[in-house]
Amino acid sequence: MGLFSKDIQTMDDLFLHTLQDIYYAENKILNSLPDMIDNATNAQLKQGLQSHLGETKTHVQRLEQVFEMLGEKAKSVNCPAIDGIIEEAEEVTGEVEDRDVLDAAIIAACQAVEHYEITRYGSLIGWAKRLGRADIAKVLEQTLNEEKAADKKLTSVAESQVNLKAAS
Amino acid sequence: MGLFSKDIQTMDDLFLHTLQDIYYAENKILNSLPDMIDNATNAQLKQGLQSHLGETKTHVQRLEQVFEMLGEKAKSVNCPAIDGIIEEAEEVTGEVEDRDVLDAAIIAACQAVEHYEITRYGSLIGWAKRLGRADIAKVLEQTLNEEKAADKKLTSVAESQVNLKAAS
Repeated sequence: MGLFSKDIQTMDDLFLHTLQDIYYAENKILNSLPDMIDNATNAQLKQGLQSHLGETKTHVQRLEQVFEMLGEKAKSVNCPAIDGIIEEAEEVTGEVEDRDVLDAAIIAACQAVEHYEITRYGSLIGWAKRLGRADIAKVLEQTLNEEKAADKKLTSVAESQVNLKAAS
Repeated sequence: MGLFSKDIQTMDDLFLHTLQDIYYAENKILNSLPDMIDNATNAQLKQGLQSHLGETKTHVQRLEQVFEMLGEKAKSVNCPAIDGIIEEAEEVTGEVEDRDVLDAAIIAACQAVEHYEITRYGSLIGWAKRLGRADIAKVLEQTLNEEKAADKKLTSVAESQVNLKAAS
């Protein structure tokens, strides 16, 4: 960040900055998901998170593809938002002993992560279209759809099993 | 948080903790929105954020109502997630000079905030229902619907005006 000049001048700059932000976030999620999977008990939840771990690897690759399409090197910028979301996830899940309550807390934590990704990909796709890069929008839309599906699946696991059991 | 015992034992504890988390978040948003409104240029955006500031005051009151329904005192716990989301919003918007690019960045920042609230209220509503507190779920659903509407309005402002202008 410049001391005397502002670093984000154009929509292209804002797009690239946000791409670097979500690149950091996806990599951070890739590091955090294995712990969530280890801590989860419910089989459907464990399996859902495991399959999302595979998807997340693809999301990182897609971001690298987009950097390439822009002629830019894949690079991260710090993302205090995902740091905070994951810090909070670790804090809360670390306070829970009961396995069923822990599953409910893990689902909520993962949904907070999903929603962060959904909002950032949503902005990026809107900007890519306006910048005349429908090709880039198309790549990012695949990821957005997978994030939305992952969020819905978590809601469905919560509704069908975990919450009922945890409240019993 | 206890050093030797875990503080969240039951679904009631998890519900209360998350209520305290979103209570902190809503109050933090209440403090941050005026700056966003000051920095925005687009009239439709300014007006939308102004009206959401009024809604946010109601959201805080509704949370106080829910604390009361639970027989608990309204209280906050630290929420690293919203701290991170708002820190990032301030960092990014502080780097933008061009008014139209700044409006696009403000919209994205506010949508990240909305999505955080949407996910937390979604979890709370699911848990309230499972805990047999449909009355509490109903109060929180009013807020969730307003957060979703605010998010949609931001997308519509972005699509109709700001992005087009900023990319031109």
